[in-house]
Amino acid sequence: MDKKLQQLKMYLAEITDLNGAAALLGWDQQVNLPPEGAAARGEQLGTLGRIAHDRGTSPELGKLLNELKPYAAGLDPDSDEARLIKVAARDYDKAIRVPSDFIVESSQIQSLAYQAWVAARQKSDFSLFRPHLEKVIELAQRYVTFFPPADHPYDVLLDDYEPGMKTAEVQAIFNAIRPKQVELIKTIAGKPQVDDSFLHQPFDEKKQWDFGVEVITRFGYDWRRGRQDKAPHPFTQSTSSGDVRITTRVDPNFLNTMLFGTMHECGHGLYDQGHAPELERSPLSAGASLAVHESQSRLWENLVGRSLPFWQHFYPRLQAVFPQLKKVSLDKFYRGINRVQPSFIRVEADEATYNLHIMLRLEIEIAMLEGRVAVKDLPEVWNTKMQDYLGVTPPNDAEGVLQDVHWSSGMIGYFSTYALGNLISAQLWEKINQDLPDLSDEIRSGKFDGLLAWLREKVHRYGKKYEPQELVQKVTGSRIDPHPYLRYLNQKYGEIYGL
Amino acid sequence: MDKKLQQLKMYLAEITDLNGAAALLGWDQQVNLPPEGAAARGEQLGTLGRIAHDRGTSPELGKLLNELKPYAAGLDPDSDEARLIKVAARDYDKAIRVPSDFIVESSQIQSLAYQAWVAARQKSDFSLFRPHLEKVIELAQRYVTFFPPADHPYDVLLDDYEPGMKTAEVQAIFNAIRPKQVELIKTIAGKPQVDDSFLHQPFDEKKQWDFGVEVITRFGYDWRRGRQDKAPHPFTQSTSSGDVRITTRVDPNFLNTMLFGTMHECGHGLYDQGHAPELERSPLSAGASLAVHESQSRLWENLVGRSLPFWQHFYPRLQAVFPQLKKVSLDKFYRGINRVQPSFIRVEADEATYNLHIMLRLEIEIAMLEGRVAVKDLPEVWNTKMQDYLGVTPPNDAEGVLQDVHWSSGMIGYFSTYALGNLISAQLWEKINQDLPDLSDEIRSGKFDGLLAWLREKVHRYGKKYEPQELVQKVTGSRIDPHPYLRYLNQKYGEIYGL
Repeated sequence: MDKKLQQLKMYLAEITDLNGAAALLGWDQQVNLPPEGAAARGEQLGTLGRIAHDRGTSPELGKLLNELKPYAAGLDPDSDEARLIKVAARDYDKAIRVPSDFIVESSQIQSLAYQAWVAARQKSDFSLFRPHLEKVIELAQRYVTFFPPADHPYDVLLDDYEPGMKTAEVQAIFNAIRPKQVELIKTIAGKPQVDDSFLHQPFDEKKQWDFGVEVITRFGYDWRRGRQDKAPHPFTQSTSSGDVRITTRVDPNFLNTMLFGTMHECGHGLYDQGHAPELERSPLSAGASLAVHESQSRLWENLVGRSLPFWQHFYPRLQAVFPQLKKVSLDKFYRGINRVQPSFIRVEADEATYNLHIMLRLEIEIAMLEGRVAVKDLPEVWNTKMQDYLGVTPPNDAEGVLQDVHWSSGMIGYFSTYALGNLISAQLWEKINQDLPDLSDEIRSGKFDGLLAWLREKVHRYGKKYEPQELVQKVTGSRIDPHPYLRYLNQKYGEIYGL
Repeated sequence: MDKKLQQLKMYLAEITDLNGAAALLGWDQQVNLPPEGAAARGEQLGTLGRIAHDRGTSPELGKLLNELKPYAAGLDPDSDEARLIKVAARDYDKAIRVPSDFIVESSQIQSLAYQAWVAARQKSDFSLFRPHLEKVIELAQRYVTFFPPADHPYDVLLDDYEPGMKTAEVQAIFNAIRPKQVELIKTIAGKPQVDDSFLHQPFDEKKQWDFGVEVITRFGYDWRRGRQDKAPHPFTQSTSSGDVRITTRVDPNFLNTMLFGTMHECGHGLYDQGHAPELERSPLSAGASLAVHESQSRLWENLVGRSLPFWQHFYPRLQAVFPQLKKVSLDKFYRGINRVQPSFIRVEADEATYNLHIMLRLEIEIAMLEGRVAVKDLPEVWNTKMQDYLGVTPPNDAEGVLQDVHWSSGMIGYFSTYALGNLISAQLWEKINQDLPDLSDEIRSGKFDGLLAWLREKVHRYGKKYEPQELVQKVTGSRIDPHPYLRYLNQKYGEIYGL
């Protein structure tokens, strides 16, 4: 049976290699590729994707997995081997359900939908995108039918991003926080606003970049296992745990873009650099889920990077780099970077309002999937919910329903992961602070090795061995719980806005 | 039959995609990869290589090619289709002869040989490399046996780099030029040496880079279809004709490294950017051979970049960038960059001595393959030939027999392509000057569009449609002919050294 297991590992290793190669091609497409290379790159990615898919759905793989079932049953269920077989079987069982024709049709529809979305957003004209989005929703509805009936059809979509997560769980979590977050931002709106005008002024681009590098080097980002480049839409892509690539962008007239973007992507990067070496070249050498990945980026960006102890250490350094900040006190700076202001655009939202952007999207996705909301009514539904949750109405569709790329690329079920990531980050943070009572002092003296070691030990090294809820339970003692995030928001903004 | 042809094209397109992906992984390995990513990258390249090889030797491909034979016989033999089938059949027939075991064994031996060579060169100790080189030569001897008997066993090795070329042809060409080049450098040695000390002084790295970019932009390097990066050992790698990547290096204390290295790689890049769009995603979208590729790099580097008309235009600009050259006259500069000086290292050799480095290597490879020279005697044979041809003896093996990477990577048969490239470049140059009588004047006014258009039309667009001898015949009216190069050397150095 050891021979079969070796065969499986080798088979999965080659699929992992193909995915790693595709990851590099994708990274390069956004960072390096000359414009006239785009068509051929698309073909290359298509070919790699087809080969990986063919192998991931091959009868040979199915036979191996089947033969290994009795062997797996005898293993410690927490062992790497048992988990590898489990994850590989889950991926295989899901993949073989989706007909090849459907995949081809999906990519064609998505490719056209993406182009239509680009044009629609540019012209702020939802009608250009509408027929395409209708097809995308119809695809999602059809996709669900390939799987056994779930508690809710949306479960099938969610499972692709958050293995094992149920729609009802997410709804319960979101229902618990929605009224509290809505109330919080209303209370804040009644208080005097903090000033953040000093963040909007010219900052030398090279100095910004270098400051970001200084911070993440201190975080523990390992340059022997990673790099950082510029990209118009920052992202993290890893081709292996020894080759992790974060990207950032620098706005010459606004400090936050580079500052928190760099820390955010570094959080993703630290996670990818931390998977146990034994998991390399296997599907387990990846994040547990998108939400867990996001918990890592948010933890470094917000819990660390937007905290007072962090700036107690780094602000003098930042002032030395940008002397124009010398007249801005630490207290004023700290309040400024934590300003709460309901706005139209999700990716620019602050910690208090962000999750509400997500809830609105989740509700809309579920309603469209169920057929309760028609695509044609989307702009109106969007704007109504924006008014209800955030008290603002987008002036046009480009800043409203057309702002995100996800739907045009067929990613229905993705959005919740952002909000869940926020919740997990605060939940981990409470646990970390119990385990490391001196953490604030350490951060105040610019030390992050204890924190990183904790994350490596409790989260990073496991890679994709555990499902997200399992991992959160294992680390914190309970499943995803919205209360730590609410406690965090109330305490932080209570102090800043004097609530 | 059209359907079969479409199937063949699609099959070859996917193999081309895999090779394009591997090309990017290889480029990235030398330009971007963090050190700890090397092991996984090796696995990814191995997997892509295996899949491409499996497909390139599959019975399915063999069947398709066989079925298309009668169809191909009815086509215009010069049509893209006929040539595609011919080249694909040639590649297939060669590939299936080599057993998979042999390929695996070869990569293992070469991998160890490469590591041993690195250590041996570092310590300048040939004995460390010797047992590995013996195995590499034995592999080459075994490789030859997989193919039908040729006029000379070395033909089989040569054919991998120069399709259709025979050992006897190369020997005849080299025999014709060897005595003339040896005589030329002896005559030059009797004349007063030109001064090139002004090339060895500090030159700002950024300004060097920018000047190189300025020159190759003027050459016509298309930045929408290409890029340039830094690499310790400059090379050109293309993932498609719309994504051509040249690299260069900058020596802060020596101008030639960046100057002629950049023009050299640009020559390769212009060739890759010029393949006809109809050949994209096929094995024909590549250079005709390594020698023809080298003819393009050498043409821009030497025939253009080391010419007087070129510097009549660019020297004032170079002086403006580097004011320390203002006291060096154009004439002195031109002589300096064309200084002839027998030396130990091939890659640093000038135009008059370069080919002799190659001839020595070819003679040694053939003798080793035939078993006439034992690996253990190599340092002695090397040094004797260096003395005979160039009048110098390397002080140690690192600067002698251990200087090149090729043998350690199993590349036996490669070296001649460098010298053949030089010869072809001069042969093309004579023809170009017949077709474009005003070429010198154009270069003198910094114009290269006529030259590039000629190369596009006569050479670049054909890609790999023709074998190298066929192409040279088609363009110049004769097969590879050493006399244009000799005429070029005699005229150029006659003027510079007053012979």
